[in-house]
Amino acid sequence: MGMIGGGTGSFIGDVHRKAASIDGMIDLVCGAFSSSAEKSITSGKALYLNEDRCYGSFEEMIQKEKELPEDVRMDFVAIVTPNHMHFPPAKMALENGFNVVCDKPMTLTLDEAVELEKIVEKSGKLFALTHNYTGNSLVKQAKAMVDNGDLGNIRKIQVQYLQGWLSTAVEGTDNKQAAWRVDPKRSGIGGALGDIGTHAENLVEYITGLKIEELAADLGRFGDGRVLDDDGNVLIRMENGAKGTMSFSQIALGEENNLAIKVYGEKGSLEWHQENPNQLITHWLNDPVKVYTPNGNSLYPEALAVSRIPAGHPEGYLEAFATIYKNFATHLLAVLNGETIENPDYPTAKDGVRGMQFIYASVESDKNNAAWTKLS
Amino acid sequence: MGMIGGGTGSFIGDVHRKAASIDGMIDLVCGAFSSSAEKSITSGKALYLNEDRCYGSFEEMIQKEKELPEDVRMDFVAIVTPNHMHFPPAKMALENGFNVVCDKPMTLTLDEAVELEKIVEKSGKLFALTHNYTGNSLVKQAKAMVDNGDLGNIRKIQVQYLQGWLSTAVEGTDNKQAAWRVDPKRSGIGGALGDIGTHAENLVEYITGLKIEELAADLGRFGDGRVLDDDGNVLIRMENGAKGTMSFSQIALGEENNLAIKVYGEKGSLEWHQENPNQLITHWLNDPVKVYTPNGNSLYPEALAVSRIPAGHPEGYLEAFATIYKNFATHLLAVLNGETIENPDYPTAKDGVRGMQFIYASVESDKNNAAWTKLS
Amino acid sequence: MGMIGGGTGSFIGDVHRKAASIDGMIDLVCGAFSSSAEKSITSGKALYLNEDRCYGSFEEMIQKEKELPEDVRMDFVAIVTPNHMHFPPAKMALENGFNVVCDKPMTLTLDEAVELEKIVEKSGKLFALTHNYTGNSLVKQAKAMVDNGDLGNIRKIQVQYLQGWLSTAVEGTDNKQAAWRVDPKRSGIGGALGDIGTHAENLVEYITGLKIEELAADLGRFGDGRVLDDDGNVLIRMENGAKGTMSFSQIALGEENNLAIKVYGEKGSLEWHQENPNQLITHWLNDPVKVYTPNGNSLYPEALAVSRIPAGHPEGYLEAFATIYKNFATHLLAVLNGETIENPDYPTAKDGVRGMQFIYASVESDKNNAAWTKLS
Amino acid sequence: MGMIGGGTGSFIGDVHRKAASIDGMIDLVCGAFSSSAEKSITSGKALYLNEDRCYGSFEEMIQKEKELPEDVRMDFVAIVTPNHMHFPPAKMALENGFNVVCDKPMTLTLDEAVELEKIVEKSGKLFALTHNYTGNSLVKQAKAMVDNGDLGNIRKIQVQYLQGWLSTAVEGTDNKQAAWRVDPKRSGIGGALGDIGTHAENLVEYITGLKIEELAADLGRFGDGRVLDDDGNVLIRMENGAKGTMSFSQIALGEENNLAIKVYGEKGSLEWHQENPNQLITHWLNDPVKVYTPNGNSLYPEALAVSRIPAGHPEGYLEAFATIYKNFATHLLAVLNGETIENPDYPTAKDGVRGMQFIYASVESDKNNAAWTKLS
Repeated sequence: MGMIGGGTGSFIGDVHRKAASIDGMIDLVCGAFSSSAEKSITSGKALYLNEDRCYGSFEEMIQKEKELPEDVRMDFVAIVTPNHMHFPPAKMALENGFNVVCDKPMTLTLDEAVELEKIVEKSGKLFALTHNYTGNSLVKQAKAMVDNGDLGNIRKIQVQYLQGWLSTAVEGTDNKQAAWRVDPKRSGIGGALGDIGTHAENLVEYITGLKIEELAADLGRFGDGRVLDDDGNVLIRMENGAKGTMSFSQIALGEENNLAIKVYGEKGSLEWHQENPNQLITHWLNDPVKVYTPNGNSLYPEALAVSRIPAGHPEGYLEAFATIYKNFATHLLAVLNGETIENPDYPTAKDGVRGMQFIYASVESDKNNAAWTKLS
Repeated sequence: MGMIGGGTGSFIGDVHRKAASIDGMIDLVCGAFSSSAEKSITSGKALYLNEDRCYGSFEEMIQKEKELPEDVRMDFVAIVTPNHMHFPPAKMALENGFNVVCDKPMTLTLDEAVELEKIVEKSGKLFALTHNYTGNSLVKQAKAMVDNGDLGNIRKIQVQYLQGWLSTAVEGTDNKQAAWRVDPKRSGIGGALGDIGTHAENLVEYITGLKIEELAADLGRFGDGRVLDDDGNVLIRMENGAKGTMSFSQIALGEENNLAIKVYGEKGSLEWHQENPNQLITHWLNDPVKVYTPNGNSLYPEALAVSRIPAGHPEGYLEAFATIYKNFATHLLAVLNGETIENPDYPTAKDGVRGMQFIYASVESDKNNAAWTKLS
Repeated sequence: MGMIGGGTGSFIGDVHRKAASIDGMIDLVCGAFSSSAEKSITSGKALYLNEDRCYGSFEEMIQKEKELPEDVRMDFVAIVTPNHMHFPPAKMALENGFNVVCDKPMTLTLDEAVELEKIVEKSGKLFALTHNYTGNSLVKQAKAMVDNGDLGNIRKIQVQYLQGWLSTAVEGTDNKQAAWRVDPKRSGIGGALGDIGTHAENLVEYITGLKIEELAADLGRFGDGRVLDDDGNVLIRMENGAKGTMSFSQIALGEENNLAIKVYGEKGSLEWHQENPNQLITHWLNDPVKVYTPNGNSLYPEALAVSRIPAGHPEGYLEAFATIYKNFATHLLAVLNGETIENPDYPTAKDGVRGMQFIYASVESDKNNAAWTKLS
Repeated sequence: MGMIGGGTGSFIGDVHRKAASIDGMIDLVCGAFSSSAEKSITSGKALYLNEDRCYGSFEEMIQKEKELPEDVRMDFVAIVTPNHMHFPPAKMALENGFNVVCDKPMTLTLDEAVELEKIVEKSGKLFALTHNYTGNSLVKQAKAMVDNGDLGNIRKIQVQYLQGWLSTAVEGTDNKQAAWRVDPKRSGIGGALGDIGTHAENLVEYITGLKIEELAADLGRFGDGRVLDDDGNVLIRMENGAKGTMSFSQIALGEENNLAIKVYGEKGSLEWHQENPNQLITHWLNDPVKVYTPNGNSLYPEALAVSRIPAGHPEGYLEAFATIYKNFATHLLAVLNGETIENPDYPTAKDGVRGMQFIYASVESDKNNAAWTKLS
């Protein structure tokens, strides 16, 4: 793996590295950790890399690595930069024969996303988007329960992704994470929308297997001087007639990383909370409440496949993130070995386009006083 | 207390009686439990009443009781009938000098509500509306925290009231509760809206002290053949600029009586769940999460005033309901003794009008594809 | 009902009154609320009693009430005094033809308990001991599950009753509750043992249907100058070979009223917490965790019989307490009507004797450095 | 790192590898994964090792690695075999200049433990024992709170470690984990005692900073034909006079990995549950309940140092385990660089000896019908 972005002090770069390393399938071999060659080398050395594999730009990295012998050069790039720097390296990597793992939202603009999806297809290379929460064992269980019809036809959905870290004007401090997230040049047209709203959108569509058909979004910009949304309240209508609410925020003071979803069907319902990921609560017409745990009783194979350790040994954020990498690496290994995998289980460019459609529909709806707007 | 409605087998009539009796301040002395004199007598006898105080209609009860000596006749009526039978007995009772406790929503129509508020005022009698959840100790604490500015300016609200008991077509069985609730003639223009949505609306305005200015409501009618809503997803905007979501449902399969609220301010936030009412969770900018319990440490006097028993001895639905009765009875006693109470703490006709405005605005918004609609 | 003890300001007297009144079956008609006639009258008046039914001693009350016409005089006495004042009024009431409801522990000494059990038997009158926690719906469910063999043979038990209100020397303040509880003359040989340990003992034996055969008790006296235990850690062995721990305390700082039990069998296990009484958590060999709620799905009739309101409407401490009164009153009514009830469901003098045996065995074990001691 | 044990299919070997890899400081370079050279090679290859670094015995590994150039050979061994195979490789590794990470309990017998502690000291090498639960952020917070006197003098302790996986006779199936754990030749004199009881003992002494002075243990052997304990109920007395209960079990049906501790002091108390490790609940004399989260507000530096990701991103079992490796590796790096670290924070041979003393005292106490027995 070669990393683009993620220099010393980065949050998400470090997460990607830890997630990639847990299952022992992936080695970090090179990186363009910073647009300053010097800083890139410093970051790389702290990661036990040789100086000659630490590059000053992604262009340099892709070119130089391409020239290395096949068994030495990186197999794929991991792009962990701010949003505006997703498309250029992804495009170049794919067009030079490298597979790609990319952070979300996939691109800065919807146009880029649509184009990138085409580039991926044309390249024949693998592309994974780190909608990491779908890597949780009990999210797999939830999806499997819906897929298998256990809940019956879905009628109602509640999803939320609540954080409070932008409650105060931290972008005015030396908080780098905040600075680029409130800056449209680097974030795109969505603030909290792109950063966390897309996770909520992805989780809904992943678990229910249903597309959000239209939405009515009332965005908030509560932080002084913010031009991008830091809060959103959204009505959603699913393609099958189900209805629901979505709420996301980065000014929900005191919330840490409260992604949660409830799905109500005609025969059963389920509830999952990211901050307590080792519990899936389900309700039934005539049975008591049933609570599932990773590697616990009565799980579907899809959920069992994801657990690394016995029941009662909590797995968390990094493990779920790692599952995206593991499934991507497993697919890549198969491809390298000339094998085929059916339905490889990780988010792709298609999900990335959906995410950008969600952002664009939400912003448009909000401009029209929360008028119903289709995703497309 | 004389009861109107609430014959044998009734849910809410029994609740009113138990709630009225807990604190030992109120005796049931008569009732018009049914429109059949015979059934009324049977119900009354089962409640240890004398036959001559069991009436076949509310008209008869009000007239006959009025003729009894002052120290014998009932002091107030408790109206626990379906919605269409709230206004007539309330009006007659007030105009004949009786105080009134009335179930919610206050009336069948908004017009009736507006008129009833005037009748109450003109009568000089007391009128309590049983928005019972405001009787919880920790709801009082929540309100006091907002009132005292602990949370700072409110920015975001989430409120929900979720039930699942109408997930299937129980109105086709012998479930009387279901039958009248899905019938516009007896329920009015709101289904779940009136039955539980008004509680959600009331709780938001009670705790935050802010009015809902406008809302965008997407109502669902999921049960076969239902003409009234059995589900609702609503965006709300408060008078101070706060935004939020409201979700209520009677087809949220598996939910029992899940009323819950979250309020986010600039300095703190709070969270309360009716099904676990003995816990108020609060978050702060720089402090750890703080959890309050009834009669526990650091409560405001308003919250302490409501607890009947030491911390750790859970109080529930009936106790909160009883608090409405207790505060009403305390006010009534004061009035009877020629004393004055400042700011008696129970919901009144004003709250009843708000509830009807909420129902009407929601239905109108829904007709206009969830367009923003003001409450008035 | 005539009350002995429970004057103004009393904790448990007020609880008994509220509990007795919830279900509308019992009226307070007289009381000896204090050993001072004057105070007794003041207390009684505040409870809307006539002065002539407020007595200055239990002796006076029992004698005078006996002389009243049958349809006027009290049907039973409720004894809510400190422990040393349980036996004398209970004995006198029974011997004068009155039924008795008595707070726990039943008596000051084991000898008294054994004698009282005989007096009850001889009198032919009803006697209820308020081990109130057994009145919870989900405690009934737990018992029914064990009784029906759902859990299989029981192997392991954990029970605790933790409070923190004696963490500091509150007996030195004007806290009346604390004063008599640390005083052997009024409490007997057990401190926390009698006050809450007996509830733990009773709950174990009630749910499992198994007797504690022997125990090893290590008692603590952490409060300065306390002669009675304020903390206890106990090993227990059940008659069937199951083993377990019991922990009770009144110096477990921060604990409010944390009575909880876990029972592990060969086929299933269960867990119940008094502070969150509306949830019974169960585990199974091959099924997911199942959680039961009062009036929820899949309950045994014994549990359904106890709920007063629909699922999701929390019932708490007072309601469970009220169930003891309700079942006692139902039994009493049947007896008065010449009917028979099979297995009336409330704690009796037999349970009271067990409680005293538990206290005595624990104190003896503790004196012998926690040597195993049989209950008898 | 070179691994001893932990071949394909192993539970704890895989855990050690994942834990060692998360922070990117440690590479697996060789292993004696099995006593069969062939199997060891197969296991090693699956881990992307070269065949020539896969050894057929720990003796071979230690000898051959020693002969490799310093910058190639392993820096330390990780011993993840059953208990009887801890001492021999640990001794040999230390005596040949290798540092050691060893699973718990440290040895098969107390004598071995005492000897190993001496060998460690004599060797001057580093030795870490994987009492992994002490690696949790909130366990560090708990310890820091006690160390800083926030709770005041400790009075009462409850600790439990409950599992249910030996509820049935799984040792008769092909469950390798079960087979050696019920076998005294491979486990030593303790069953559940050694496997999980030692974790409970270690957690108590780690958080409170107090030694268990004596204990009274009532062990159970519920599984048919088991000679080692599969359940234990223990009274404990701490060196400062605090008292408590300990309960551990592998037949607590339905329990997954329920390690939990409560510590009550004179000024505050705390509660932590391994299955929900991202929450530390604390109680105070005059403040509301305060709940701490990893990387959340108001933590001590010791707790902040351990979190890898922002608050709300749950870390679990592997991360806590990884912290032991990280702190060990940090210490080792310092030593290799000729630097000094004050109070390196990971369990050592001293803790290992305590664990064996705990096992031996418990077994002796149990033989004497749970008589009080000192740890020494």
